[in-house]
Amino acid sequence: MYPLSVFITGANRGIGLGIVREFLKVPTVKHVIAGARNPESAKDLNSITDERLKVVKIDIECDQSIKDAYAQVERVVHDNGLNLLVNNAAILPSYFTNGPICRETLTKCLNVNTVGTAIVSQTFLPLLKKAAARKSGDHIGADRAAIINISSFWASIRRNEDGSGVLGALAYKISKSALNQLGKTMAIDLADDKILVAQFCPGWVQTEMGNMGGRTAAITVEESASALVDSISKLQKQHNGGYFDRDLRVIPY
Amino acid sequence: MYPLSVFITGANRGIGLGIVREFLKVPTVKHVIAGARNPESAKDLNSITDERLKVVKIDIECDQSIKDAYAQVERVVHDNGLNLLVNNAAILPSYFTNGPICRETLTKCLNVNTVGTAIVSQTFLPLLKKAAARKSGDHIGADRAAIINISSFWASIRRNEDGSGVLGALAYKISKSALNQLGKTMAIDLADDKILVAQFCPGWVQTEMGNMGGRTAAITVEESASALVDSISKLQKQHNGGYFDRDLRVIPY
Repeated sequence: MYPLSVFITGANRGIGLGIVREFLKVPTVKHVIAGARNPESAKDLNSITDERLKVVKIDIECDQSIKDAYAQVERVVHDNGLNLLVNNAAILPSYFTNGPICRETLTKCLNVNTVGTAIVSQTFLPLLKKAAARKSGDHIGADRAAIINISSFWASIRRNEDGSGVLGALAYKISKSALNQLGKTMAIDLADDKILVAQFCPGWVQTEMGNMGGRTAAITVEESASALVDSISKLQKQHNGGYFDRDLRVIPY
Repeated sequence: MYPLSVFITGANRGIGLGIVREFLKVPTVKHVIAGARNPESAKDLNSITDERLKVVKIDIECDQSIKDAYAQVERVVHDNGLNLLVNNAAILPSYFTNGPICRETLTKCLNVNTVGTAIVSQTFLPLLKKAAARKSGDHIGADRAAIINISSFWASIRRNEDGSGVLGALAYKISKSALNQLGKTMAIDLADDKILVAQFCPGWVQTEMGNMGGRTAAITVEESASALVDSISKLQKQHNGGYFDRDLRVIPY
């Protein structure tokens, strides 16, 4: 089932923008709120004329910016609360085991991808709880209240076979494994509130990040986002806390 | 096989101190270097009279302190290099999904448990590579060169069943899952250098951390450290990058 309202971070480009477009294709979705660090320069977002779309400024490294975004989202959804938060904003700085030592790079990557996601999720809990409380019974899903964390196949510790790899993914990998544990922990903690939490790998997508290092990624943004939104709409109790590919197949942590 | 030289961080108390004591029981171990944030107040360490023990100041939140510790370890092991680095220093701050929002607490926990461990490991690579290069062939193990990260059963995303739990382990859990991915990534990156990397859960041990919240932990420091040191001595190629309990049984990530 689809949510009535959804808020997506990092929505100015790439997979975040793709998810915005996919939710706007669903007639029953009433509010699509797109978070961007610099809304004024988010050309693609600003060119969308659908009246259900609202663009909101959010910098997930800054607690005050997150609070300001919360206030704006609240003004859109009012007492209905927010059904779905999609934590998509992330960075991929280059960092190699055998490269230069730089605490700042590791810390920055964790601060955006993991800590920023934690703070956004916690800040938005009141609106998610409000939406969840409007339905009764044990049902959980994206139409009630859910947090979706955009993870990566690089989060999988078990499937890690290339280490830092050619891109120097060490910082990114540890931040996304930590994100998976954040989501699993929050899923358990929020089960009583009927808020579902799940992590998705979008696949290797033709975005600025996906095409880094002169590579050509395997699938288009639309293919990935379309599958993701479809899978999000199918989430149920048994998926709570899980880690999936875009087609809702389980990935081992 | 046992290492000739070992450096252990967070060795002033608890499991770190236990590991120091266990290595000193092995006659073939030549140098046990114990890292402590405040060596002058590390009474238990300073009361050990064994001449093979050297106490070194190290604060893993500070890059310069790590560099200074490296120089001191180098003066002990010289051209033999360092066989074994045990990353044990860690903190467990209280943090709940449904509790107060505090970026500083999350960042501090990741900075010590994950980033600090990464920086120590990278800084000590030249001494570990030196030790590894003194032997030939494909053999890897703690007697050649190894990095052991003291992880936790709380690092397991798959086995996470209590979320933040009664202690508020959210920050700790994400930092230790990230540590497991750090170790797995470094294991792959350092395989060509014949440096082994593995993660261990010491069990629920009667330390200040283990007995937090008025609990009584299941096993003594000596039981845990004795099993850990025995398991470390048994590590071989098939264990590289793995995550084990103190008896060398695989834990799912």
